[in-house]
Amino acid sequence: MPELIRQLGGKSSDLDIPQEKTSSQTEKKIFRTRTSASPYARVNKAHVKELKTIVGQGNVIVDEERLESYSHDETDASEYAVIPEVVVLPSTTEEVSKIMKLANRENIPVTPRGAGSGLSGGAIPCFGGILISVEKMNSLIELDVDNMVAEVEAGMITNEFAQEVQERGLFFAGYPMSLETCFIGGNIAENAGGGKAVKYGVTGRYIMGLEMVTPTGDIVRLGGKAPKDVSGYDLKQLIVGSEGTLGIVTKATIRLIGLPTVSADLLVLFDTPRQAIDAVPVIIKSGIVPTGLEFMDRLSAQTSCRYLNESLPYGEAGAMLLIELDGNNSKQVEADLLTVGELCMQSSATQVFVAEDSNTKERIWNVRRNVAEAFKVFSPVQSLEDIVVPTSRIPELIPELERVSQKYGMLIPCYGHAGDGNLHATLVKDPEMSMETWKVNEDAALKEIYRITMGFGGKISGEHGIGLKRKSYLKDLIDPVELDLMRGIKKAWDPKNILNPGKIFD
Amino acid sequence: MPELIRQLGGKSSDLDIPQEKTSSQTEKKIFRTRTSASPYARVNKAHVKELKTIVGQGNVIVDEERLESYSHDETDASEYAVIPEVVVLPSTTEEVSKIMKLANRENIPVTPRGAGSGLSGGAIPCFGGILISVEKMNSLIELDVDNMVAEVEAGMITNEFAQEVQERGLFFAGYPMSLETCFIGGNIAENAGGGKAVKYGVTGRYIMGLEMVTPTGDIVRLGGKAPKDVSGYDLKQLIVGSEGTLGIVTKATIRLIGLPTVSADLLVLFDTPRQAIDAVPVIIKSGIVPTGLEFMDRLSAQTSCRYLNESLPYGEAGAMLLIELDGNNSKQVEADLLTVGELCMQSSATQVFVAEDSNTKERIWNVRRNVAEAFKVFSPVQSLEDIVVPTSRIPELIPELERVSQKYGMLIPCYGHAGDGNLHATLVKDPEMSMETWKVNEDAALKEIYRITMGFGGKISGEHGIGLKRKSYLKDLIDPVELDLMRGIKKAWDPKNILNPGKIFD
Repeated sequence: MPELIRQLGGKSSDLDIPQEKTSSQTEKKIFRTRTSASPYARVNKAHVKELKTIVGQGNVIVDEERLESYSHDETDASEYAVIPEVVVLPSTTEEVSKIMKLANRENIPVTPRGAGSGLSGGAIPCFGGILISVEKMNSLIELDVDNMVAEVEAGMITNEFAQEVQERGLFFAGYPMSLETCFIGGNIAENAGGGKAVKYGVTGRYIMGLEMVTPTGDIVRLGGKAPKDVSGYDLKQLIVGSEGTLGIVTKATIRLIGLPTVSADLLVLFDTPRQAIDAVPVIIKSGIVPTGLEFMDRLSAQTSCRYLNESLPYGEAGAMLLIELDGNNSKQVEADLLTVGELCMQSSATQVFVAEDSNTKERIWNVRRNVAEAFKVFSPVQSLEDIVVPTSRIPELIPELERVSQKYGMLIPCYGHAGDGNLHATLVKDPEMSMETWKVNEDAALKEIYRITMGFGGKISGEHGIGLKRKSYLKDLIDPVELDLMRGIKKAWDPKNILNPGKIFD
Repeated sequence: MPELIRQLGGKSSDLDIPQEKTSSQTEKKIFRTRTSASPYARVNKAHVKELKTIVGQGNVIVDEERLESYSHDETDASEYAVIPEVVVLPSTTEEVSKIMKLANRENIPVTPRGAGSGLSGGAIPCFGGILISVEKMNSLIELDVDNMVAEVEAGMITNEFAQEVQERGLFFAGYPMSLETCFIGGNIAENAGGGKAVKYGVTGRYIMGLEMVTPTGDIVRLGGKAPKDVSGYDLKQLIVGSEGTLGIVTKATIRLIGLPTVSADLLVLFDTPRQAIDAVPVIIKSGIVPTGLEFMDRLSAQTSCRYLNESLPYGEAGAMLLIELDGNNSKQVEADLLTVGELCMQSSATQVFVAEDSNTKERIWNVRRNVAEAFKVFSPVQSLEDIVVPTSRIPELIPELERVSQKYGMLIPCYGHAGDGNLHATLVKDPEMSMETWKVNEDAALKEIYRITMGFGGKISGEHGIGLKRKSYLKDLIDPVELDLMRGIKKAWDPKNILNPGKIFD
């Protein structure tokens, strides 16, 4: 190992971060129920009876306390919680079809839900009605090693799927950071990205086929195991990222790739966020494609370390990059590692650490994976964003975020998938600020950040989606022609607008 | 170089292949004009005058002889030729928009056209009307090396684009075999695949953004340079492969990757097609991802060699694989080359040749690229197909094609992208067969081949599209629910059905 790269070690220093008062932390969520102005029918006793006939008595939930856990996802504001009128847990695609047909006939809104780990309110039943959870549809149906393809039910936990295919020497490369909780179906609904997307792309790249129930209750299979297909419109890619508004995905045919046998992670420290960010395009342009290229500012790293009671040399730096390299040839990976380390040093890095054993790797990735969770504990009132810009524009974005932070008196810690230009700038409420002021400032700051992002040729969401949370912003930022084209599809497929209404656009 | 792999050399032996009589070769195409039952308005003098105002006098073609060259694409049957009423050559997106608005107002069908190198009749103006050729919109607008992204007009020739980016050390990986003639816009319309798709994927993977004119004449930009985006439905991927029925692509934002610095090609000979095909899943499953993995049977290779007056050791074998490997590390590529060579020998290969210098590489790829062209010269009456099945099913597909060939008394030479399961089985008319019998047999054989393909979990087109040519077959093979979903989008976006009507579905 050359001089510039050190084996990872060291201790983290303490850093004071603001903490929301305990009363706010335990503040009960305000559950909303459907508004009286709803254009939909209410779920009545006859509907519940019919639902019980379809999925079985034990798979229909009407008990208020149990309903509450289906009222929200991981979106951070209390206003994003609405109680469904009934929750159903189907076990088959045919059951999902029957539920949709009932809903379509009776004009009842239906919200499909995966693990509820979404971050844009995509699974919140904002009009009440029926919530369909796919949690019981969680099997690996087929692992076709010959064709390197798997067929899996929508409710399977991503990590369970990833581990099963890994045992057969295969790799599902398109998974998000929340892989320990999220469902495959949710990843598809949001076209989730993750820590390996720089090299391997996001979920959509791996979707070869889908089984889906349409808004009117028909079952359809799109795509399949054929590696290429231009037999008409690519509807499966339209479903990917459509946030459950165009169909309920029940099964997916997923392309697998060979499992990389060698990997190494670099933890690179810089004095300032700007220096770290400046190094990103340098690496991207080098020709070496890192598996992942993550950025964390000091506040993000320290908050996660404190949450995990972890000790890493984060305290020494103002910002850091976490760079993963993988492949099947250890010499190649090592050569790439040295090149990337050199490039970082040339770009003002102060330290380059390498983590080669699986334990150290797991520790540093654990810190990165838990940033969002950690901020929730320490500062529950916040807005977790995932703006994305062309990578060359990130250095211009960071000072803009700092400016907005100053202007509105809020912290904006920043971390995320820098290699994709996708940053989790997180607006965090100062504990001293009143909720009323926070609401006004949050809204103004978001509008400003989104406009800056779009001005850099970016988008307001790279992987979390629009859902309920960003809908009101999207309508002012998107080309009205594009919005009309989207609305045209939605209306053609779901004329009664009963499938996940109120998401993305009205 | 180990014993098993030899430097490429040798002479091709002669092989008798049937030749259609000269009279048929030079047979004049039968041009159809629009039928009287057309639901559309005819182009009149006032329309032509208005078109001249929009694009300038010199960019409106009404001269019959010049119109004829826009009546067909590379689809091989004479019935696939219909003369447009007028051809316009816009230079800007605004002009395309004005043409579409005129057409929409006057109820005139519009056919968008790239280079006319399509193989499914997607650019044939089957209802007459206006044909928009994008040939004058052929500039590279921006090469953004920092973000590894290019913006290019739809009418740029693929190879010119590929070469310009290559000069900057970048690589456009999603191009088809016809790269010397085809336009970027046409590749997008058909979601074209090519010889590098096994490793790099097809055109769609590289499309980050599109500028497009809608069927009603609005201009819209979809996507952009942001590496990730879930801000609403992914409309750009819906446009990719939609064969010009949902919008006219005027510009594309294309993702580039680092140019591989090392490559090697293997030419592997087998005694029988079955043995060659059996080797494909063995290679795919090895974990080594070849850049391309092409199959040619003896008839295909010999026909192309004769057409090119080329001498390669194809005569020695009953079938062959052409395998490309690339990367940035010569040792890695060489190691992969040896492994793949060994795997082929274990799978009954008789000879493994390596082509390492660029001249030899170009020679063998030239043979592969010219198979279709060669068959047209030697046997003009044919049906060039591009069925696709899961790679593990190819060995079952080959004997089925042989059975159909026997049953209907036609040759079915077979070549193509075996690594993607995508085979160009080509139905070739026996010179002795009457055209009447050929028509009946071609139809029956296609129906049988398509059903077999679908039965193997495949699709009837992997890269050429449905267009006019396969429309009548698709409707009987596709799930009616899926077809209705496609129709729903088309109707929502193009209520008068004026943009490229008669393609994919009615």
